[in-house]
Amino acid sequence: MKSAPLKGTRDYLPKEAEIRDYLQNSILETYRDAGFCRITTPILEDAVNLDKSDGGENLNLIFKILKRGNKLIQALEQDNVTEQDLSDMGLRYDLTLPLSRYYANNRNELMTPFKVIQMDRVYRAERPQKGRLREFMQCDIDIIGNPSMDAEVELILTTTKALRNIGIQDFTVKINDRRILKSIFSYAGFAEEDNEKLAIIFDKLDKIGLEGVEAELKEAAFPEEAIARFLKLFESGNLTIDSISDVCDASYVENIKYIMDTVNTVSNHAFPIVFTPSLVRGQGYYTGTIFEVEAKGYSGACAGGGRYDNLIGKFLNEDIPAVGFSIGFERIFGILMEQNYQIPGQKQRIALFYNPESYPQALTKAEELRKDYMVSLFARPKKLGKFLNKVENQNFDGYLVLEEADGVKLFSK
Amino acid sequence: MKSAPLKGTRDYLPKEAEIRDYLQNSILETYRDAGFCRITTPILEDAVNLDKSDGGENLNLIFKILKRGNKLIQALEQDNVTEQDLSDMGLRYDLTLPLSRYYANNRNELMTPFKVIQMDRVYRAERPQKGRLREFMQCDIDIIGNPSMDAEVELILTTTKALRNIGIQDFTVKINDRRILKSIFSYAGFAEEDNEKLAIIFDKLDKIGLEGVEAELKEAAFPEEAIARFLKLFESGNLTIDSISDVCDASYVENIKYIMDTVNTVSNHAFPIVFTPSLVRGQGYYTGTIFEVEAKGYSGACAGGGRYDNLIGKFLNEDIPAVGFSIGFERIFGILMEQNYQIPGQKQRIALFYNPESYPQALTKAEELRKDYMVSLFARPKKLGKFLNKVENQNFDGYLVLEEADGVKLFSK
Repeated sequence: MKSAPLKGTRDYLPKEAEIRDYLQNSILETYRDAGFCRITTPILEDAVNLDKSDGGENLNLIFKILKRGNKLIQALEQDNVTEQDLSDMGLRYDLTLPLSRYYANNRNELMTPFKVIQMDRVYRAERPQKGRLREFMQCDIDIIGNPSMDAEVELILTTTKALRNIGIQDFTVKINDRRILKSIFSYAGFAEEDNEKLAIIFDKLDKIGLEGVEAELKEAAFPEEAIARFLKLFESGNLTIDSISDVCDASYVENIKYIMDTVNTVSNHAFPIVFTPSLVRGQGYYTGTIFEVEAKGYSGACAGGGRYDNLIGKFLNEDIPAVGFSIGFERIFGILMEQNYQIPGQKQRIALFYNPESYPQALTKAEELRKDYMVSLFARPKKLGKFLNKVENQNFDGYLVLEEADGVKLFSK
Repeated sequence: MKSAPLKGTRDYLPKEAEIRDYLQNSILETYRDAGFCRITTPILEDAVNLDKSDGGENLNLIFKILKRGNKLIQALEQDNVTEQDLSDMGLRYDLTLPLSRYYANNRNELMTPFKVIQMDRVYRAERPQKGRLREFMQCDIDIIGNPSMDAEVELILTTTKALRNIGIQDFTVKINDRRILKSIFSYAGFAEEDNEKLAIIFDKLDKIGLEGVEAELKEAAFPEEAIARFLKLFESGNLTIDSISDVCDASYVENIKYIMDTVNTVSNHAFPIVFTPSLVRGQGYYTGTIFEVEAKGYSGACAGGGRYDNLIGKFLNEDIPAVGFSIGFERIFGILMEQNYQIPGQKQRIALFYNPESYPQALTKAEELRKDYMVSLFARPKKLGKFLNKVENQNFDGYLVLEEADGVKLFSK
């Protein structure tokens, strides 16, 4: 049998699991205090839903469940069996598709606007060679049924509060609108069918600079005139929300300004929120505002989201406005572990040693102590000193020997 | 697209999800206070591990993941493709196998004895027609590396405390030993290869009575002499731990007595713990004591467990003593929902209404109120009264209108 977990999945040690629990509970509490309510959905989804979900690249990364029994036998009897024949459900690759299905399914029993929390596992068949996880945790909040930009403001304030509450203090919120992105490309004169390719190149602006973008656009043989018109936009430096106003619809600019101004006012400028016209976000289902959080000193996003006004409509034949913000929990966990994260102020954990004949008394004593401590019982080992070293290494704060009346002894830190 | 969740899986509404979270946190806290530490393992397991895990019936209920890319193409090129060719991993059907693998994989970084919590989802392709869930939650504690019956005592005390803390007060703990079960059959003179069939029949004793068991044994054409000798054991009523002593090894009886006595002493007889020689528990991997909890008025177990001293050895080529107790969370959740469960003493949830032009002030006011309440913001609807009815139905405790200075109004319950 194989002891190691499957590639791209992880066993979490007690110390890690404890920190993960603490962080998740802290995020959940911030979300709940902000009036969002948690739901849970199954990890398994119908293949039809997954396949039609506009998930972009993620659609190629779905783990599919093999059919069973007669269904499988029938599938295998066909000529030229395909993947589709062999599977009719899969593991979800994000929490937005299940939420859309959930809202369509349970709409009559939910508030509108529906302010919802999801904290759960998702699955993608990423390449483990690149250090990518195939099973990971996302922490999402979404607001369904509110077309106003107030929803974006609330998501940004709540998500950043959750991050600050767990010790991610120094970060930038980047914001853009998918429609502004399209307007820029169209203003420059690129063909609409090239938007996706253009977005992938433009997205690298922060990494490779404008010259790098220029080089890649030329290499991809886009029309020189369009490239020139595109570059001219940057003549006086970075694009700002004001300099963009000739390029796109005024309402897009107003939206972004309203969000930025309100967030700045209410948060009292606790963090920068920056209009970033090169921000793309991968998912195919975004229709308007998009945003992400970048922690200082760590490249890539640790949270991301946007407006997806059409996805729920696929279930209901009616467009429903929706916007969500997802914390990439594994990224946050990685950053905090790198910073040697300590859980603030929790009950101390002590070991209680007993001789076998006094086990009932030890159990009773442990119950008393549990008002103040987490208490783990151990039969007294022959070499107590050696064992105590182990106990100390395993995250215990102190110990007590039942037969010795001098109370809890804390390890000196 | 399909709005309903897949058969055998469930969407949880906000009220349900909130109760589930509360119950899980309460159980987790009891476990932690008792000195157990949580770990998490992946939902995906290697097919080899699953197949060799002695899972009994559950091995027929494993959801298998379809191979991908070239691996799948190669598999499909074979003649007579089988299920095994198409899949090399699956979804775990319980938490004991992943724990055994985990212990083998991480042993050097863990305490011995290792007192561990797992609370997580498992998957079985049960028939949804019977109302069985295919995705469900288990809450397990296990002690690995302690051969003494103290481990059983601690698991029973801790699990029953967790149940009592969430309001399951009236229950019985049943206890047996797999080896006693075997001894009874062998004492009666049945053939050893019939043990499994015999166990299935004997397990029904509580439901169908001794006459029912007799009838089934005769119907299955077991030797009449053995049946007679078996029935004679019950001459003076139910088998007791004392009346069993001629039938089996004295140490088995001593073990059970030690566990029962110690649990009774420490719990101060807070619940009955009853020797139940017909108790079987389905899993193939149990080697010694087995136990379960039955809630009064609800048939079937709501928690179950036992000793499995050989399973971890399959990974390590060395036997490691281990014993576990698992709360069937869905059963508990079902019972408590039937009893109209209310979460005790949590923050009140209020709605804060604002006019669009005062959104920033509303956000600031909400932040103040969040010291004492969970606060959800809503743009003031035209028909406030009608909306308030909805809010009240959705588990809110009260509301506040920003422009009206008279504070939080609580709904009368």
